[in-house]
Amino acid sequence: MNNQLGETSKFAAVLVAGSWGTALASVLACNGYQVKLWTRSAEQAEDINQNRMNSKFLPGVMLPARIQATTDMEFALQHAELALFVAPSGAMREVAKQAAVHLSEETLVVHATKGFETTSLKRMTTVLAEELGRSQEQLVVLSGPSHAEEVILKQPTTVVVASASIASAEQAQDALMNTDFRVYTNPDVVGVEVAGAIKNIIALGAGLTDGLQFGDNAKAALLTRGLAEISRLGTAMGASPLTFAGLAGVGDLVVTCTSKHSRNWRAGYMLADGTPLEDVLSKMGMVVEGVKTTRAAYDLAKEYDVEMPITFQLYEVLFANKSPRTAVEHLMGRLRTHEIEDLG
Amino acid sequence: MNNQLGETSKFAAVLVAGSWGTALASVLACNGYQVKLWTRSAEQAEDINQNRMNSKFLPGVMLPARIQATTDMEFALQHAELALFVAPSGAMREVAKQAAVHLSEETLVVHATKGFETTSLKRMTTVLAEELGRSQEQLVVLSGPSHAEEVILKQPTTVVVASASIASAEQAQDALMNTDFRVYTNPDVVGVEVAGAIKNIIALGAGLTDGLQFGDNAKAALLTRGLAEISRLGTAMGASPLTFAGLAGVGDLVVTCTSKHSRNWRAGYMLADGTPLEDVLSKMGMVVEGVKTTRAAYDLAKEYDVEMPITFQLYEVLFANKSPRTAVEHLMGRLRTHEIEDLG
Repeated sequence: MNNQLGETSKFAAVLVAGSWGTALASVLACNGYQVKLWTRSAEQAEDINQNRMNSKFLPGVMLPARIQATTDMEFALQHAELALFVAPSGAMREVAKQAAVHLSEETLVVHATKGFETTSLKRMTTVLAEELGRSQEQLVVLSGPSHAEEVILKQPTTVVVASASIASAEQAQDALMNTDFRVYTNPDVVGVEVAGAIKNIIALGAGLTDGLQFGDNAKAALLTRGLAEISRLGTAMGASPLTFAGLAGVGDLVVTCTSKHSRNWRAGYMLADGTPLEDVLSKMGMVVEGVKTTRAAYDLAKEYDVEMPITFQLYEVLFANKSPRTAVEHLMGRLRTHEIEDLG
Repeated sequence: MNNQLGETSKFAAVLVAGSWGTALASVLACNGYQVKLWTRSAEQAEDINQNRMNSKFLPGVMLPARIQATTDMEFALQHAELALFVAPSGAMREVAKQAAVHLSEETLVVHATKGFETTSLKRMTTVLAEELGRSQEQLVVLSGPSHAEEVILKQPTTVVVASASIASAEQAQDALMNTDFRVYTNPDVVGVEVAGAIKNIIALGAGLTDGLQFGDNAKAALLTRGLAEISRLGTAMGASPLTFAGLAGVGDLVVTCTSKHSRNWRAGYMLADGTPLEDVLSKMGMVVEGVKTTRAAYDLAKEYDVEMPITFQLYEVLFANKSPRTAVEHLMGRLRTHEIEDLG
């Protein structure tokens, strides 16, 4: 494609315009892409195009001129070298369905969504493969410790891209890598997707312990047990244990559980003082992936016959009116006598 | 032993009266021990005995009546079921030498010091074995995510005790375990000691990145690489990789790198703005284990031929006048293209 100046343009599509989608659109724009940022909301598209700002999700940050918001899916995907799916997990199938008819076979498909499909318990690459009629080799997942609020300000960030095809992962790496946003490849799609989803549950739990004033020692214990729990489910589902020691595993877990930017942590913190779940969700005003993921992981743990004590306690707090304090006390008192039995 | 009320008394000795030693003395006192807290400083002993407070290290916290401070090593160790060594790593040999002549063969020896002997690069159980004339089976190490400031306030805390003898580890567990202070056994002495020492280096690095305003994403990347680096050295020295996924590994790393209580983090934070090392150390007023450990780990990495990029960069900042910003930039840019190559 040539633009008005006669320069060759390269295009990318990002669906949808939440905080993470907008931050990744900004990375692609900095790397020279003309980015079409698709949103269902005409009001949001206008805000972005008129004010150069995503006022709802990333207020106060000017967006690069190369980002153009649109509600037109066909226009968004036209000529796109890369389509980046960043819909909430519950909306991914619907967005993919809409995109499927306009998506060229040549467009690289990457997603950066952390969660499972609640009804089917499917991972996001499975949902995309089904709706887009693609093989796993044509799909890439992006994950890692990466708060949108820092990425958009170009603070140093490292992420991984995983694919069944190393060539696809490297294509995504080439498109997204720059000095401030470092992208590493990893062949373990299952591990990266499971780690990214479940850490939101542990972050809810970390918000609970912090809200209950249990202290940093208790939170560190929760994180350690959380990582063990994530690894157990992941390896049962076919992941490599190494992935959980990497950026998408412990890296993302740490940033989500200890950062002021984490919405899952904030939701847990509010739950700690007895605020009912519906009120917490309406106050947050954004999707809290950890809530739906708790339900999905609870079902997956049963399906794969894996012990997930943190997930089970959180499930009872969220959906069975268990008191947060009782749940955290159960967690603290739960470890076996010999640590290694629990980790092995 | 019978006390004035005719009750059977059990005795424990804790050497020395830093913040961690005082907090552990408090745990033992809560568990019914008459604790002799040994210190070189007559002034500190008087402060503790007169004011029921360790004003220098844990100001504002009342100590249990069962703690008695003393400068008399023989008196401290008399009748002790358990001797808990919590001297700074650089003072451990000297304290052990003094204790050796008064220590009964029946007294269980536990240490809770995180660091290596700088000159010899020896682990603390090795130093204790040499000075006390004991076998490894008669020694226990205690470690895990446990800020003294929270332990003394009875905030929930989990730690591990490791020993070559499971019976010794369980004896330490019985003495220290209570509702707020949960103690798990682990057979991997080398892993627990290496993890506890090296995490102080990563905490210095985390203080640097925070001081340089690099953000939470960058700090999470540093922690992830730090854990990989600790595991590499530990397994080369004979540790089990599982230990680094547990409380003494990732748990302690997280709490040390993210908590406001961590003195290594604070030292790194001060270094970030260009404060010279000597000024940082004199401002801290306590031993900053991470500084000496950086030198020791630098030498160990060479001895065991292990890659430790964070340790090497920190070494240059501390001892070769490298600018903190340049060091952190080198670290951020350093990862290989494929994450798994680095973790495997």
